Amino acid sequence: MSNNPFENIGFGSKLRIDDLVLQSNEANIPMKISFLGGINEVGKNLTVFEYGEDMILLDCGLAFPDSTLPGVDLVLPDFTYIEENADRLKGIFITHAHEDHIGGLAYLLQKVHAPIYATLLAVNIIASKLEEHDVLSTAVMHTIEPGDNVACGNFMVEAIHVNHSVPDAIAFAIRTDAGTIIHTGDFKIDFTPIDADVIDLTRFAEISKENVLCMLADSTNAERPGYTESEKIVGETLYQLFQKAGNKRVIVATFASNIHRIQQIISTSEAMGRKVVLSGRSIENVVKIANELEYMNIKPGTLVEIDQINEYKDEQLTIITTGSQGETMSALTRMSTGMHRRIKIGPNDMIIISATPIPGNEKTVDNVINDLIKLGAEVAYSKMYDVHVSGHACQEELKLMLNLVKPKYYIPIHGEQKHLIANKKIAQSVGVPAENIFVVNNGTSIEISEYGAFEVQDVPSGRVIVDGYGVGDIGNIVIRDRTQLGDEGVFIIGIAVEYNTLELIGEPIIESRGFTFVSENEEIYNEVIDLVKNILKRGNFPGTNNLKSKIRDEVGRLIYNRIKRSPIIIPLIIDLDY
Amino acid sequence: MSNNPFENIGFGSKLRIDDLVLQSNEANIPMKISFLGGINEVGKNLTVFEYGEDMILLDCGLAFPDSTLPGVDLVLPDFTYIEENADRLKGIFITHAHEDHIGGLAYLLQKVHAPIYATLLAVNIIASKLEEHDVLSTAVMHTIEPGDNVACGNFMVEAIHVNHSVPDAIAFAIRTDAGTIIHTGDFKIDFTPIDADVIDLTRFAEISKENVLCMLADSTNAERPGYTESEKIVGETLYQLFQKAGNKRVIVATFASNIHRIQQIISTSEAMGRKVVLSGRSIENVVKIANELEYMNIKPGTLVEIDQINEYKDEQLTIITTGSQGETMSALTRMSTGMHRRIKIGPNDMIIISATPIPGNEKTVDNVINDLIKLGAEVAYSKMYDVHVSGHACQEELKLMLNLVKPKYYIPIHGEQKHLIANKKIAQSVGVPAENIFVVNNGTSIEISEYGAFEVQDVPSGRVIVDGYGVGDIGNIVIRDRTQLGDEGVFIIGIAVEYNTLELIGEPIIESRGFTFVSENEEIYNEVIDLVKNILKRGNFPGTNNLKSKIRDEVGRLIYNRIKRSPIIIPLIIDLDY
Repeated sequence: MSNNPFENIGFGSKLRIDDLVLQSNEANIPMKISFLGGINEVGKNLTVFEYGEDMILLDCGLAFPDSTLPGVDLVLPDFTYIEENADRLKGIFITHAHEDHIGGLAYLLQKVHAPIYATLLAVNIIASKLEEHDVLSTAVMHTIEPGDNVACGNFMVEAIHVNHSVPDAIAFAIRTDAGTIIHTGDFKIDFTPIDADVIDLTRFAEISKENVLCMLADSTNAERPGYTESEKIVGETLYQLFQKAGNKRVIVATFASNIHRIQQIISTSEAMGRKVVLSGRSIENVVKIANELEYMNIKPGTLVEIDQINEYKDEQLTIITTGSQGETMSALTRMSTGMHRRIKIGPNDMIIISATPIPGNEKTVDNVINDLIKLGAEVAYSKMYDVHVSGHACQEELKLMLNLVKPKYYIPIHGEQKHLIANKKIAQSVGVPAENIFVVNNGTSIEISEYGAFEVQDVPSGRVIVDGYGVGDIGNIVIRDRTQLGDEGVFIIGIAVEYNTLELIGEPIIESRGFTFVSENEEIYNEVIDLVKNILKRGNFPGTNNLKSKIRDEVGRLIYNRIKRSPIIIPLIIDLDY
Repeated sequence: MSNNPFENIGFGSKLRIDDLVLQSNEANIPMKISFLGGINEVGKNLTVFEYGEDMILLDCGLAFPDSTLPGVDLVLPDFTYIEENADRLKGIFITHAHEDHIGGLAYLLQKVHAPIYATLLAVNIIASKLEEHDVLSTAVMHTIEPGDNVACGNFMVEAIHVNHSVPDAIAFAIRTDAGTIIHTGDFKIDFTPIDADVIDLTRFAEISKENVLCMLADSTNAERPGYTESEKIVGETLYQLFQKAGNKRVIVATFASNIHRIQQIISTSEAMGRKVVLSGRSIENVVKIANELEYMNIKPGTLVEIDQINEYKDEQLTIITTGSQGETMSALTRMSTGMHRRIKIGPNDMIIISATPIPGNEKTVDNVINDLIKLGAEVAYSKMYDVHVSGHACQEELKLMLNLVKPKYYIPIHGEQKHLIANKKIAQSVGVPAENIFVVNNGTSIEISEYGAFEVQDVPSGRVIVDGYGVGDIGNIVIRDRTQLGDEGVFIIGIAVEYNTLELIGEPIIESRGFTFVSENEEIYNEVIDLVKNILKRGNFPGTNNLKSKIRDEVGRLIYNRIKRSPIIIPLIIDLDY
């Protein structure tokens, strides 16, 4: 893997330090670790390490909103703490190229500057994201490889190869005079990975001889017993499903970043004499990057454009697409509802959903599957076939890692509270004392050294909402209003009044949305109009605010009593100051 | 089980017919089967059987809304087809006492009248529901037992005992001159059920000698290989968890209707010397009924009232509660957010969630678990412990039933499209020809006889939404508006105009909810006001509707261009006709 464009276009040079030279002499002061970002998950999007005067970040990702954040596009970490310490920030280290680990960079770089250290694939994917956001020119990026040690302020940071659902994922050993900290990043142990590059267990074992002070480890699958299966399993299932497909067209939905999965789909297609169409901008973009950097091996002529599909028979075609999570606007969802412009689904389609639903997406994915089946397609999904394996370590893998590294302190990260607790229990089961395990929250700060580890005062955390072009202009009140609007609708009473006397001019107007058919509840409308006139007659309100809250309360009560619903009531009062 | 109150209060008498006397002589005419109700699930809530002049119903349930029906309380089947044929309706047969099989009765009985046939427990639970809805006095109910044959118009209907997650569940053999139809209802095969009453496999085998024309069978678990485990497994896990709890208080959340589960929780508590508190109206109600009817065996003095909990130590208490699905207003959710008036959660609580999330509820349940853990409680849930088993047959059980009954035709029911297809594949795997298997939709009608089976014209189906006191006053437009309101908010422009000239009087007023903080986007507000004034100046709109749509379009476009959001735009125009 040699064609790194960043070596040529001068973004920063590849850095390789073979001798450990710690630049600090401040012994016995503790390392401070703080967690930012996330909605329910903790310690995933952004971790801050501080030692003496210096600060580094590990990952800078974003979170995807759940149903408690209706209409929201993205959720960023709160960068306040980093901005307040911008002059101390020496570097940003990236574990792998997933949105929840890199998606915040484009926003952070608009506020602070620091060099980014990441592996070749991640650097290139980050670059394409930064370019979309028009901040690429301000970024300084360094490509690192497993085994590299980066001296960064008071820190010496070593990259260690791990397996995950994207190639080139790394863990970090972060060394200061306070000791060695291992951060696993997202990882699994795959003894037969597609690129034959097994997680570097030997290196983890070697580092354990340094008496590792603390390990932070991926909790995503801490509830699951046993081992996560090898990516290779999926290849075998794909082969069988392609054989079963016979003369049908095959459509496979998966994650755009799962390059090994996409490689397996492409290799199977090549073996079966099928051309491959990539459908969806993100998947086209990632495959282009990965192919150019030789992370993939695609035969010339295999890939064809989507507008060429009519030149091939169904049995000659595989379409790889996004939408495995049932995302509303994704290609697969549009296919399932007949709204895809070029791909119409029918009985001659075999559709493989090569993914499992991320928690919260189960129902949406089920709906897409049901809709595809109704169109006559055969659908293979993870409940029925081994079409997906996870990228995260299960319980036995975590035990193995704990046994190799033997950290003094342990911090479960990457998970909801229940995952962190499950990971804590795993650590206890292999002998880590309960008091040496920290179950953290977003905002938690821990100071840690050979002399002990303690929670210190929280740092500012919390979520910054991105919706459309707006970053941070939506808060709890807007979210609460959206929830009520979505469940109950809105009921608006418009009146025009004479400025001083609040005398009603013209008739009150009522509009509602999401409430009821107008005709069915005309009675209520008339009652509301009478009520509002009555309130005005009772009169004498010092200012329209008082009048507004009176209308809001009384109309709300009337509607609830009549029909047991609570729409948001909006009195809209026009002052006629003429 | 002898204390059936309905024998005394004269609601109808118990009916037992030992000789089959079919009252029809119309040979060779087909049976018509139609499916009503449901959201994504098919053939669950209500099935209509017609033969000659007569009609019977099997179950009359409701569906619970998913996220595509925001704010909706319940979804009823469309009763139109039944109302149109009200004079032909001879009886309503109930398989078991779950809401999705009985919850529609209170609404149906306001429109048509027919006797209800159900087992003892179901009759009593139905009665309590009908009483809540004030329709009990109009109902005629008959208690039936497995083995009973009910002559009902042209139909002879036999009840057959099955296992399920509520006691006293039955399947039906429905006989007419067209042949015998088996409807499994919701079922599983449990060889070690809590009440020692195993599904009557022998009777299914006997009936197969009649050459069963068609079987309709539960598809809920058709995706799952193997067998569903026995309810007894859960008892063993509960015992271990109670032991582990030691001196902690134990709180168990489960389904109110799962009487055998509740029995196991109570028996375990009694064995450990714990008193039991029932928290939640539905659970109190069901336990009261089941206990009076001797479906349960609770020692005197075991149950204590919730306001007595302070008289006992934590180790002397078990609290059984609802909310296992993370329902917003449920007792468990209120405990998890610290909003429960009497029960405060802390480190001395062991909470067992003895249920799995119904599809779509996964994230909500996870949030409750996380919140409980944050309060310090230990939480045991189905991913980590065997605290729940399903009430539905898995693949091998369906194969067994198919092999016993050997039906000519097969109709997978109770499931989404994907479950029905999975069930179809199971039937094919044991030799039912694909052309004899019908994958139906809601509204589908099938005519079936020895001479063949065919889909005929659909019957009116569709969903009737219940929200607050309103039944059927919410349609697709209201739902679509709620979805947009919930995702994007509402933006209201109020203007007062002179009636004829549409001349603006006073200033336009803007209100928004769920859109953005006002202050952050004041610019947009001012731009909108300028735009509206400008539209009015361009003037000359024939009628306010035209003006409204102009404002809606242009303001919508402006907001989208500025901030990439699409709130519902509501122009509110007050005509000043003075």
